[in-house]
Amino acid sequence: MTRPDPNDPGLLTAAETSLLTDLYELTMAASYHREGMNEPAAFELFVRRLPPRREWLLVAGLGPALGLVSELRFGERELAYLESRGFEAAFLEYLASFRFSGEIDAMPEGTVCFGNEPLVRVTARRIEAQLLETLLLNQVNFQTMAATKAARVVLAAGGGEPGAGQRVIDFSPRRDHGIDAAMKVARSAAIAGCGGTSNVAAAMRYGLEPVGTMAHSYILSFPSEEEAFTAFLRAFPERGVLLVDTYDVEGGVRNAILAAEESRVPLRGIRIDSGDLDALSRRARDLLDRAGMNQATIIASGDLEEGRIADLVAAGAPIDSFGVGTDLGTSRDSPTVNGVYKIVAHADADGIWQGVRKLSLAKETIPGAKQVFRSFGRRGTMSGDVLGAADEDVPGQPLLEKVMRDGEFVAAESLEQLRARAEKSLAALPADLRRPSAEPAVEPYPVELSPQLSALAGAS
Amino acid sequence: MTRPDPNDPGLLTAAETSLLTDLYELTMAASYHREGMNEPAAFELFVRRLPPRREWLLVAGLGPALGLVSELRFGERELAYLESRGFEAAFLEYLASFRFSGEIDAMPEGTVCFGNEPLVRVTARRIEAQLLETLLLNQVNFQTMAATKAARVVLAAGGGEPGAGQRVIDFSPRRDHGIDAAMKVARSAAIAGCGGTSNVAAAMRYGLEPVGTMAHSYILSFPSEEEAFTAFLRAFPERGVLLVDTYDVEGGVRNAILAAEESRVPLRGIRIDSGDLDALSRRARDLLDRAGMNQATIIASGDLEEGRIADLVAAGAPIDSFGVGTDLGTSRDSPTVNGVYKIVAHADADGIWQGVRKLSLAKETIPGAKQVFRSFGRRGTMSGDVLGAADEDVPGQPLLEKVMRDGEFVAAESLEQLRARAEKSLAALPADLRRPSAEPAVEPYPVELSPQLSALAGAS
Repeated sequence: MTRPDPNDPGLLTAAETSLLTDLYELTMAASYHREGMNEPAAFELFVRRLPPRREWLLVAGLGPALGLVSELRFGERELAYLESRGFEAAFLEYLASFRFSGEIDAMPEGTVCFGNEPLVRVTARRIEAQLLETLLLNQVNFQTMAATKAARVVLAAGGGEPGAGQRVIDFSPRRDHGIDAAMKVARSAAIAGCGGTSNVAAAMRYGLEPVGTMAHSYILSFPSEEEAFTAFLRAFPERGVLLVDTYDVEGGVRNAILAAEESRVPLRGIRIDSGDLDALSRRARDLLDRAGMNQATIIASGDLEEGRIADLVAAGAPIDSFGVGTDLGTSRDSPTVNGVYKIVAHADADGIWQGVRKLSLAKETIPGAKQVFRSFGRRGTMSGDVLGAADEDVPGQPLLEKVMRDGEFVAAESLEQLRARAEKSLAALPADLRRPSAEPAVEPYPVELSPQLSALAGAS
Repeated sequence: MTRPDPNDPGLLTAAETSLLTDLYELTMAASYHREGMNEPAAFELFVRRLPPRREWLLVAGLGPALGLVSELRFGERELAYLESRGFEAAFLEYLASFRFSGEIDAMPEGTVCFGNEPLVRVTARRIEAQLLETLLLNQVNFQTMAATKAARVVLAAGGGEPGAGQRVIDFSPRRDHGIDAAMKVARSAAIAGCGGTSNVAAAMRYGLEPVGTMAHSYILSFPSEEEAFTAFLRAFPERGVLLVDTYDVEGGVRNAILAAEESRVPLRGIRIDSGDLDALSRRARDLLDRAGMNQATIIASGDLEEGRIADLVAAGAPIDSFGVGTDLGTSRDSPTVNGVYKIVAHADADGIWQGVRKLSLAKETIPGAKQVFRSFGRRGTMSGDVLGAADEDVPGQPLLEKVMRDGEFVAAESLEQLRARAEKSLAALPADLRRPSAEPAVEPYPVELSPQLSALAGAS
């Protein structure tokens, strides 16, 4: 059997992942190696400006990113390829024994963050810190985008409160950007509070609830809708959630009720994938209740996004779960998080640390390692952040925590812990920033510079 | 060493990929298996409506998708997981020996397509055809989105002609949605005609040109810009493309010239990543030419997208290459391709094929296996498509070709062949659809139904 693309031997190997980097990381590293410039340096990953239609971000992707970092090894094929591209032997020898051995401080996943706040700080020998750039950005940018979108959908489903996340199901694999994206979107959605995923591989790996009903093609494969429903209940008497909109929803609900009655199983639920979901869910609820099937739930799907979900919830539509695909997987209304990774300090030959500042037009970077200090007001609501120097004495809760020391993880957190943090973070957002709305909040969340950073920023 | 997320053991294995599917594919398959419903069926993958701001799509992702299909195997862990979720033993036995053995017809990658045109048709035993759905959509949707975006950037760089693709470089890994996306965006961009990628793993795997310069952090790591440039030229005398906008561009170009002169190497080029790229590139070109460095090229980057590139090209800015990241990787102005996979025909117990039609509101599917017949006018320009029945006699070039028979690939195509097809396809687009513009073309490209399909569509 010939492969369709003879150049593409399937899934990426772990060793190949070492080259999942922009070429310039390697050329810069080679030059540093040649010059003997490998004193410690500090880089920070942050988002300069929040994306359009976003007033906060929910941080995600750190765990998978650091998993890849800790396993970063250059294999023989990879080194041979680099040799063929002109990298010199001494540098390739360095890469052959590469292990990340530095320090990483970061906002743990499930934290809410804002523009200019460092999400990750890498303090390591310059070459090691440089070589992490692409992989960290590749993982953290899109997973933060996905977790943020999922959090907004979760808030929409809860009328502005994060507790209703169980009602939101990830239906995105068909619209996610490939295999890694499908896995990580499911994970990010789970951190944000979503209650399940249609993605079986993600459910297995991350211990999530796999959720699914049937496609229209299933119904169309039988002589009648009722026969399709009956066959499905035969195979899965305990999980009969039946898709009722292949022909018309009202008739579909009646057939679902009939099929459950004839099969003598309790109907678990129905799914409506098109039409006026408010009116149709009310009609369906009425029919189900009249048939004594109060336990049967109603799942809505079909190009759902946060605004439409918020409207359905506000209208009181009797929908129990929302299956969200495209918008969850691609964050269609704001499809990028433009995190960057910038050097902020380095040690000189005598080991004395110096802040590093970039001065390009409109792209200034504040020098020095930073920390975010968050204050809380009444009922634990976030009241303001201060961006300060890492060693500065600033009131508030410091958000960046020790994650790696000497290349070893300081602590491991389960998905349940990340999920609990996210729920707490979202509940602590000012109500104005939690409410589903196309309009930006009147008062943006305050992020100020500490006295020390103000002085540094003013010095440019 | 503890992993940061104890649930996540790193890269996905090939066996796990078998579960990268929506749960409902497996529940439907289990029900078909139980009912003995495994006669042949035909499914088509198509986009109902073109996405916003898109008047055509460039098909990509088929090769990687079919590579995964051909290797789809359920491993012991995966089967044990499904057993724990209530799947019965007979179905798990079926899955244990699963191999795709059906037929696939498809538009080869690099073909231009429109709404309602089938990109892929799977004809196989019902269960096999059903089990491919999620993986095919997961790969083809986003890669078609990425190739289309890349093609638009390529056309913008060529003032509406596809020949200038060499000038466009994929700088997207830091904004792509994970590892698989970074690989496939580089591949899709190459199919669309792009001249290189910063992604070293993709360059190695697909035989692309790896491209890179240096980051601002590199310049900032040295006492002065000139020292940074000199150090870089020492390491890579042959590939000195120097980033000149860390402080100010004009001074940066002068330092680049000085560094090249002192190092006695020919300056390969400079990169400008911020500011007024038109004015700055002219000033830089002037300085380089005065120094006798006519061979030095100018690379522009920094949140470039097709409109800005078209403007720079129209203005005659002396830019040789465009590095495009975020917009290439996320297709920010139109970030989804909503392909669907629908059953269109199945055989009854006597082996007689029947068309299948779905009637949900606004989501009608035309029954029967289909073919797209494309006509060309003067100078090979596409003049119109007819969507016909697969066995209908319609004038024009049929676009769907045999790709798999009995689960085996009919033919393999190299990336060069896909790239050549894409260039030919883009050149054959009517000029109105090739020109970079925010305005939709006055005349949308004509796609009509054949007599046979008109009769079927009217019969609903």
